[in-house]
Amino acid sequence: MQHLTIVKIGGKIVDDSDSLATFLKDFSSIAGDKILIHGGGRSATLLAEKLGLETKMTEGRRITDLEMLKVVTMVYAGLVNKNVVAQLQKIGMDAVGLTGADMNLILSGKRPVKEIDYGFVGDIKRINAAALLDLLKQNYVPVIAPLTHDGNGNLLNTNADTIAAEIAKALAFDCNVRLIYCFEKKGVLLNEADDDSLIPTLDFELFQQYKSEGIIQGGMIPKLENAFQAIAYGVKEVIITCASDVNAGKGTIIR
Amino acid sequence: MQHLTIVKIGGKIVDDSDSLATFLKDFSSIAGDKILIHGGGRSATLLAEKLGLETKMTEGRRITDLEMLKVVTMVYAGLVNKNVVAQLQKIGMDAVGLTGADMNLILSGKRPVKEIDYGFVGDIKRINAAALLDLLKQNYVPVIAPLTHDGNGNLLNTNADTIAAEIAKALAFDCNVRLIYCFEKKGVLLNEADDDSLIPTLDFELFQQYKSEGIIQGGMIPKLENAFQAIAYGVKEVIITCASDVNAGKGTIIR
Repeated sequence: MQHLTIVKIGGKIVDDSDSLATFLKDFSSIAGDKILIHGGGRSATLLAEKLGLETKMTEGRRITDLEMLKVVTMVYAGLVNKNVVAQLQKIGMDAVGLTGADMNLILSGKRPVKEIDYGFVGDIKRINAAALLDLLKQNYVPVIAPLTHDGNGNLLNTNADTIAAEIAKALAFDCNVRLIYCFEKKGVLLNEADDDSLIPTLDFELFQQYKSEGIIQGGMIPKLENAFQAIAYGVKEVIITCASDVNAGKGTIIR
Repeated sequence: MQHLTIVKIGGKIVDDSDSLATFLKDFSSIAGDKILIHGGGRSATLLAEKLGLETKMTEGRRITDLEMLKVVTMVYAGLVNKNVVAQLQKIGMDAVGLTGADMNLILSGKRPVKEIDYGFVGDIKRINAAALLDLLKQNYVPVIAPLTHDGNGNLLNTNADTIAAEIAKALAFDCNVRLIYCFEKKGVLLNEADDDSLIPTLDFELFQQYKSEGIIQGGMIPKLENAFQAIAYGVKEVIITCASDVNAGKGTIIR
């Protein structure tokens, strides 16, 4: 089976052209097939501010009304995605920038309104694994912006961590998949203030224990839940690390 | 040889969701392979205004400084492109939205500064015909935003009419290509104020005559020059018509 590495990067790295260039060089040195999924949070917030729109977040998720949907479509699918693609082309990687609407890659449904109305936010229904496998077979590097569509003409803002996990799960049947979540820290830490307190490996039992003890909290919980779900679906390995260590074999490894 | 229709639409139609929906339905009814190239001028000007950027045009071309490049990347590759793709998916067309950087489709060079510094504007050097043919073979409908790249990490704003003509020329060797330019009028008119004064067919000699007489002028001249060049390169037919007649067999035909 072919080896596939799926890397998710956050919004911060794409805002800084130097660290983005370094990251993309490291990313390109990963052996085997590759898919890159990016966020773009800060640029979207900045553009929203300039346009006089208020950014509302609930549990790390952006409330996306129609005007905010336009902003994230412009920033994620336009500014961030195409700059990443152009930078990858520069270093000889034949990248193709896509959203979930392109090639019908990711079909989603608008999140039902319960206590919170998230607006134009999508929950993933189906990944088009065949289309992604075809792109990889043709040696393209898919670069995916965190937008999906509902098949009824609407784009939907969708969490990039979740997209990465769902794609990993969908391709685990055909490939040896490794999923790498890059963020600011060196991995999952025992003590958030101490960069040297890295947890080198994490299994589900230990995760539950750390969660109940309050050692693992906040935005790390859904990230790790995504990770363990991916492992359950046959993904070989999930690594949580910082962008500068994407190909350094460091970070927290989840098997 | 397969039949391929390349349609270019302007920015105005994509601003209005009703006329866009009607147009896309007509577009989808065209037999054979299809490529759609869009502009997005008015939305970009509107966003630039909101951000306090001044839009400078020279001979119908946008002067593109770094801030304006960000605006057109967001609007063309993000907002317009992805909305068109989502609308096409809605009606069952498997569209994929791309810029010239994606799949290294269109390589360009930054226009040299002579009397005017156009800024980040690209002159096309090479079309990746093989990649486009592969997409068509897989029954995708490429939807192309008017941005190219220089291979050195820079996106460049590029005229959509020219992109349409260059793609038509590049594919004329492998396909029976028909190129349709959609704009506001019913075609090339003898008298701009009279919609019934349509010129049904135009050859190069007649074009030269009308040009010297001042009957054909302004932005129509580069459009027609693109058209005649495409014919010279083996494109079977160029049609200049309005978006609502895209599949009605009307307009000015250039052979």
